[in-house]
Amino acid sequence: MKSPDSGAAQRPRHAAHPHGAAVLKRLNRISGQVRGVTGMVEEGRYCVDILTQIAAIQSALDAVAMQLLEHHTHGCVQSAIRSGHGDQAIGELMEVVKRFAR
Amino acid sequence: MKSPDSGAAQRPRHAAHPHGAAVLKRLNRISGQVRGVTGMVEEGRYCVDILTQIAAIQSALDAVAMQLLEHHTHGCVQSAIRSGHGDQAIGELMEVVKRFAR
Amino acid sequence: MKSPDSGAAQRPRHAAHPHGAAVLKRLNRISGQVRGVTGMVEEGRYCVDILTQIAAIQSALDAVAMQLLEHHTHGCVQSAIRSGHGDQAIGELMEVVKRFAR
Amino acid sequence: MKSPDSGAAQRPRHAAHPHGAAVLKRLNRISGQVRGVTGMVEEGRYCVDILTQIAAIQSALDAVAMQLLEHHTHGCVQSAIRSGHGDQAIGELMEVVKRFAR
Repeated sequence: MKSPDSGAAQRPRHAAHPHGAAVLKRLNRISGQVRGVTGMVEEGRYCVDILTQIAAIQSALDAVAMQLLEHHTHGCVQSAIRSGHGDQAIGELMEVVKRFAR
Repeated sequence: MKSPDSGAAQRPRHAAHPHGAAVLKRLNRISGQVRGVTGMVEEGRYCVDILTQIAAIQSALDAVAMQLLEHHTHGCVQSAIRSGHGDQAIGELMEVVKRFAR
Repeated sequence: MKSPDSGAAQRPRHAAHPHGAAVLKRLNRISGQVRGVTGMVEEGRYCVDILTQIAAIQSALDAVAMQLLEHHTHGCVQSAIRSGHGDQAIGELMEVVKRFAR
Repeated sequence: MKSPDSGAAQRPRHAAHPHGAAVLKRLNRISGQVRGVTGMVEEGRYCVDILTQIAAIQSALDAVAMQLLEHHTHGCVQSAIRSGHGDQAIGELMEVVKRFAR
């Protein structure tokens, strides 16, 4: 884990993500789901049931990613455009959208 | 999580998944990645960096799902077909494939 | 496109796909949708509306792919397993499933 | 071509899409690929080969969608933000991004 004064200082940083509590709650649930799948594999549970759980984790990750993406676009991207750095912020946004596109 | 002697006895079960060790290793790494993302949100790290990490978790889950799917098809589905229960096993397989299709 | 008497003779071939009529109907509808999108671009229509139509084509292609995949698994893969060539047919099936997984 | 008095007048419209020629070229190629798949089904070609072609069409559609999305974000979304209608344009953008996310 990086300490708050570590080297990534040139990256934008938020004192706290406005939606941080909701995002952390979702991530904690996802952590529990991953532990659940680990237990299913250890117990030798049926593959199809394990796969169904993995698909549920993917959906939960998609939802948290879309929440963060929406927050980022309304916040950072909009500010960047207003202060004249729009093209760079949009280029970066498109790179990350492509990671989540099929 | 269900205890090993719980009621899901009618579901096929493996004493141990042949690829269990490899799958568990991948799942442990994924658990660590989810904890890493939680830390990034707590520290207020840049959204784009968090999203990039979430996309990496998605790819890791896809890989583990494809490994399980391949194992399941070579094992359970092939046995079911040989013993004349192919259509049911294939129906179930297709349901789970659809969950991972776009 | 290959002519019917071309060299791909070593590939399995069906006199007619059992679900051929349904698949062809879906493909004709998809062709129409692609022409529709071409028209929208020529007319300078709003990008978001064009993107919504492209997403609809993707869904239609997913549906036709899942229909063909299901048909292939019940037919060719099941026959191959019964005649002892299961592992090869399953390997090939998994390759194609991965193309449709995210 | 729609007549000038048609109903969609309230939607933004471009005299010509700046990337229109490139997009149309890609769409024409996609039309040809869909016709190719239709021919393969009619000829009773091997399912796996047909599925591989459908996956190629999906990739081509993804690429054209990402090109349009990028163009839309640099253009319409950026203009909307500069003229104070950012939140609405971003909401609409996120809706369309979600359609292409897994």
